[in-house]
Amino acid sequence: QVTPQQMQLLVNNCLQCHAAENTSAPLMGDKQAWQARLQKGRNQILRNTVEGINGMPPMGYCSACTEQDLNALIDLMLAPALEESND
Amino acid sequence: QVTPQQMQLLVNNCLQCHAAENTSAPLMGDKQAWQARLQKGRNQILRNTVEGINGMPPMGYCSACTEQDLNALIDLMLAPALEESND
Repeated sequence: QVTPQQMQLLVNNCLQCHAAENTSAPLMGDKQAWQARLQKGRNQILRNTVEGINGMPPMGYCSACTEQDLNALIDLMLAPALEESND
Repeated sequence: QVTPQQMQLLVNNCLQCHAAENTSAPLMGDKQAWQARLQKGRNQILRNTVEGINGMPPMGYCSACTEQDLNALIDLMLAPALEESND
């Protein structure tokens, strides 16, 4: 479950890269990109988010995000990749 | 699959309400809200999006959105509700 506050954190932070062209960030909604990253395991995705990875800065520069926020937003970002009807 | 252009349409249009507090719009990431709406069927959700419903204006005021865009973004909005691990 994501709260309105967490959605604002998503829009103002995560989607600056994960919804933009010409960034190396895996796009929100890109099933294959997130399915590939899920191979590393859900915990590794959280660690990469907190510590930063490749072009992503630690916490995605979201100083206001708690780990709970990050987990809720990571789960939202992963939802298409976990969808039942994986066509 | 969602394109970067469609993600920009999402951020600039849909998330003005579907990620904001104090709107009657079902929040992106709110599994129960979208599971309830899914009872009406996926086609009805598209029709409501195009024609408008309750507080939502037709097309969510996204004049730049094609029906293909709307379908891609509706599927993204529905993803958490369609997730395998529906806890």
